[in-house]
Amino acid sequence: MIRMPEPDQQVLARRGEIIAALRRIVPGEGVVENENELRAFECDGLTAYRQLPMIAVLPSTTAQVAEVLRYCKANNIRIVPRGAGTSLSGGAMPLADGILLGMGKFKKILEIDLPNRCAVVQPGVTNLGISQAVRGQGLYYAPDPSSQIACTIGGNVAENSGGVHCLKYGLTTNNVIGVEIVTLDGEIIRLGGKHFDGPGYDLLGALVGSEGMLGVVTEVTVRLLPIPPTARALMIGFPSVESAGDCVAAVIAAGIIPGGMEIMDKLATEAAEAFVHAGYPLDVAALLIVELDGCAAEVDHLVAAVEHIATQHQAVSCRASTSEEERLLFWAGRKAAFPAVGRISPDYYCMDGTIPRKRIAEVLRRMTEMEQTYGLRVANVFHAGDGNLHPLILYDANRPGELQRAEDFGADILRLCVEVGGVLTGEHGVGVEKRDLMPTMFNETDLAQQQALKCAFDDAGLLNPGKVFPQLCRCAELGRMHIHGGKLPFPELERF
Amino acid sequence: MIRMPEPDQQVLARRGEIIAALRRIVPGEGVVENENELRAFECDGLTAYRQLPMIAVLPSTTAQVAEVLRYCKANNIRIVPRGAGTSLSGGAMPLADGILLGMGKFKKILEIDLPNRCAVVQPGVTNLGISQAVRGQGLYYAPDPSSQIACTIGGNVAENSGGVHCLKYGLTTNNVIGVEIVTLDGEIIRLGGKHFDGPGYDLLGALVGSEGMLGVVTEVTVRLLPIPPTARALMIGFPSVESAGDCVAAVIAAGIIPGGMEIMDKLATEAAEAFVHAGYPLDVAALLIVELDGCAAEVDHLVAAVEHIATQHQAVSCRASTSEEERLLFWAGRKAAFPAVGRISPDYYCMDGTIPRKRIAEVLRRMTEMEQTYGLRVANVFHAGDGNLHPLILYDANRPGELQRAEDFGADILRLCVEVGGVLTGEHGVGVEKRDLMPTMFNETDLAQQQALKCAFDDAGLLNPGKVFPQLCRCAELGRMHIHGGKLPFPELERF
Repeated sequence: MIRMPEPDQQVLARRGEIIAALRRIVPGEGVVENENELRAFECDGLTAYRQLPMIAVLPSTTAQVAEVLRYCKANNIRIVPRGAGTSLSGGAMPLADGILLGMGKFKKILEIDLPNRCAVVQPGVTNLGISQAVRGQGLYYAPDPSSQIACTIGGNVAENSGGVHCLKYGLTTNNVIGVEIVTLDGEIIRLGGKHFDGPGYDLLGALVGSEGMLGVVTEVTVRLLPIPPTARALMIGFPSVESAGDCVAAVIAAGIIPGGMEIMDKLATEAAEAFVHAGYPLDVAALLIVELDGCAAEVDHLVAAVEHIATQHQAVSCRASTSEEERLLFWAGRKAAFPAVGRISPDYYCMDGTIPRKRIAEVLRRMTEMEQTYGLRVANVFHAGDGNLHPLILYDANRPGELQRAEDFGADILRLCVEVGGVLTGEHGVGVEKRDLMPTMFNETDLAQQQALKCAFDDAGLLNPGKVFPQLCRCAELGRMHIHGGKLPFPELERF
Repeated sequence: MIRMPEPDQQVLARRGEIIAALRRIVPGEGVVENENELRAFECDGLTAYRQLPMIAVLPSTTAQVAEVLRYCKANNIRIVPRGAGTSLSGGAMPLADGILLGMGKFKKILEIDLPNRCAVVQPGVTNLGISQAVRGQGLYYAPDPSSQIACTIGGNVAENSGGVHCLKYGLTTNNVIGVEIVTLDGEIIRLGGKHFDGPGYDLLGALVGSEGMLGVVTEVTVRLLPIPPTARALMIGFPSVESAGDCVAAVIAAGIIPGGMEIMDKLATEAAEAFVHAGYPLDVAALLIVELDGCAAEVDHLVAAVEHIATQHQAVSCRASTSEEERLLFWAGRKAAFPAVGRISPDYYCMDGTIPRKRIAEVLRRMTEMEQTYGLRVANVFHAGDGNLHPLILYDANRPGELQRAEDFGADILRLCVEVGGVLTGEHGVGVEKRDLMPTMFNETDLAQQQALKCAFDDAGLLNPGKVFPQLCRCAELGRMHIHGGKLPFPELERF
């Protein structure tokens, strides 16, 4: 059950005047007020919840973004920035009294700078679009969220997006070296750049993953990496998810950093195999896919080393790809796992907790116990190398109470992640989805310190309010380092 | 000429009472008040400037740190945290009215966690101490500042320290995954941890490199990397520093990421060769040392690729190491370059600017012109792959005016770095050394945003004031996003 901040009736009453003012800033078709057209923005990837924004604004220049933000600050209007709207945590969920600031028109690749091995792009360029632009030079942009065809680099910066290869190559925060942002005051600030490190506080570090709450990104400089000359995948079957989890921890303990290391449990493996016929073994309780990349000799050496570790951890089958076609086939099932699970259940709810690697086996065992408690099945598909779980809770939204039960189950899984020393999210962000669980992980002092950073950028609380923090706070009160009360101040949001 | 904040006479008048209060918090020998003993803390690696602290406190538990900070906040006393005191930018320079908070007693390695490939250590553990503790497991901690025998991981976190291998393996910020800090309010906060990513703002990112101004680090969790199985070094001679600089940019543009890539100019090469007899060619204008690491087959392939690029960039000599002894010999001169330069000049001043790689040749050329203007010679030894320059300005402190001229020359070099799209520091931090140059790089809006982040952690301005920012600011005034006035408010510091 998700609640959002109470709409400001005074702002709603001034809608016509606000539209007129925004049209003066962004002329032409850049201001959307018609309900049918606003429907395009009513939700992001967290599709169970929908909300029409008051108005959508689609600027095409940084100057327009600055003027819109200045206007909103002067008139106390809330703003929700949005890239492609693929967020799975509701980071781009609109507000009834807020402006949806769509950055889709910022689509240019501004510069490809080979000697500095980086590219400068506008925030509306897609994640995959960057790699495609530099493929001819043997380079690519490393983070690869599943939505990479659609999601934009601006959204990736907001959510600190990950992907299958983050184990070896890092998240967005490790691959973005500079941004230009516009603050709520309409000031344009450059953080980082093409150079190495930089003086002063790492505002770039604070901004990446800030879920649109600190500023609006108008330009991004990304690091480019050489495409690995060789990659081979191993497909390893285990008699239990526990032994697969232990094998993952042992590979890392041996100092090996695979390009990707993913576990699928029996349910996910069966669903994927039925969908794409990747040749997955159906007689194992867990399937581990390990990809090793580098030069051919190194990869062969690492494949043998991982095979050896697997046999020490009860592996019952092990196949190494011997061609690029075979490697892609091994991955095909994993990549199609979400839609595959969609075929065996009317609905599923994808969670995103992260745990220390050595607790994987234990957490998987306890999740199995929880399936009994909630009477719902879970398919597990996850970035095992990172300890980043993506349990898919299967439910049927047409059965009364099942969505609620799935959400409660999901919350319990995240509480378990925190209990074993993990965290609430690995790569999907907090958004509205995990907002109310933040106190599970952070105490009042922690949350107050985070809010203090928010206030340093946005003391009016107008940038994407209602996300990340379970309480709207008044910056003026933060000096005392205490947030008052424990009740959620937000009214309930309609659920679809 | 460095100025520091005016001492608070009211605090100085209460010195006796403060000592008594601190002794109640840290009993035994943990409070240092005697002038001779305080001399040990009068400067850090920026030895040209010295200042006795009012009192030094050496706590041995986190609870003591928290109580000291709470006491200081309640009594409006400034604090300067200190690790081993090897900072080259004066980050640990004491204040006449301040407490020097020495973290040297926090020396324990708390945990080596192989399945999660990380170690949890106290901040007073030395950088090299971490690698030594895990060498038997084939692992190491990657950032390797020249001071790694002495410098502590806590100081590395404060300064975001680098080293020769940061090009490939990242700075401290890329290798520290969690910290425990104590805020000025005496609250203990954990940022990051053993898990992958985490929800909320990246306070860990903001903290690393914050130069002791946001909180006091009491525990650090570091990532461990496997020791590369093979490493080979290339020693390549060029007819000009420009051609060496161009070669560096071309190697990176080809997608190759060497473990280290360092340039020494003729003066530095001659000094180093005379000192350690590494077999450096003396008939070249610049020497490039490139280290390639990985498995043997990969390294051989990369050595050939770099040799090929070098020949396309006018290389006049090229030797590849064929044994581990030879590789270490190639590096011996580079590692001894600073003391070697110390043998050919009574004094030298080491700068630390960073530029985009493709501007290296141009910046080196303009620095040569500046040598004429200032009548001082420069030896260049630098992390070329990172674009991180370390020009050593040679001077004689006994000649009236030469230190001032060296400082002016250094400031001009840093201005040049900013002019070409670079920054004021790569790995030494801003401290007091580059503080007054911050407005060269950042405008009022930028600095106000950084100050706002500082205020979010320390609204009283008691943690390490006088560092990084050219003006002390009142947090209450920051709401207007303007810092008033342009004059430096600090009295002049005695120079040695």
